Amino acid sequence: MKIEYKPIGIVRTPFKELKGIPKQPSKSNGVNGIIEVYPQFQEGLKDLDGFSNIILLCHFHKITEFKLSIVPSEETEVRGLFATRSPRRPNPIGFSVVQLNDIQENKILVSELDILDGTPVLDIKPYFREFDSNKEIKTGWISK
Amino acid sequence: MKIEYKPIGIVRTPFKELKGIPKQPSKSNGVNGIIEVYPQFQEGLKDLDGFSNIILLCHFHKITEFKLSIVPSEETEVRGLFATRSPRRPNPIGFSVVQLNDIQENKILVSELDILDGTPVLDIKPYFREFDSNKEIKTGWISK
Repeated sequence: MKIEYKPIGIVRTPFKELKGIPKQPSKSNGVNGIIEVYPQFQEGLKDLDGFSNIILLCHFHKITEFKLSIVPSEETEVRGLFATRSPRRPNPIGFSVVQLNDIQENKILVSELDILDGTPVLDIKPYFREFDSNKEIKTGWISK
Repeated sequence: MKIEYKPIGIVRTPFKELKGIPKQPSKSNGVNGIIEVYPQFQEGLKDLDGFSNIILLCHFHKITEFKLSIVPSEETEVRGLFATRSPRRPNPIGFSVVQLNDIQENKILVSELDILDGTPVLDIKPYFREFDSNKEIKTGWISK
């Protein structure tokens, strides 16, 4: 089964090459970027400015291979790919939660965007807390 | 530009038709399902059991059209598509945070899975809190 998508827009950031991109979103605090939605999809941005944070799904277009076992950056042990956020995935979809600052026509101005300039955008969704913030969550090997 | 993906697995749930699927994840509490990862990707599941919650990206294979302006379920006003979680999107990628109960070989046993049985899986990622839980977030038209 083949699944075919087309970009709905493109990411504009100061990161012109993969080298130097923060490995974790929290480290890119303060870096601003623009999500340029193609004009034919602009109508769908209405009301999005009511959200302080949005989910950005994009296609890591520079990724050509995946590895099922990897050593994550700043780690020493080999981990299963799906227990990491490595971009080298069978379907290289990037997931980011970014802070929405403003929407100007078809441009979404955001912060905390740690993505290569020119990356195709697949989808934009409003961000809700998926969980009650009092609920305990376990975040795997990172806290071991 | 065309982007081509292949499923890494399939979702198994009690929901055999779209009718009757809870509209919001929180309403599917207690419903269990299985994410069956194809055997050739099983190696990538190592260490995932250290996480209490995982992000599931799937392809809504029954969606054939999108609408840029919609009235969300249980609402009366028209909203921009990207300010909603409607599945009728240009690229119908489903985003869910589900609770991981167990991993048995290539099968991930989860709760809170509000997805049609047989839905193709695109990706699985570990869930972290993307934000400091003390941070205020604004969730748009929903609280208006």
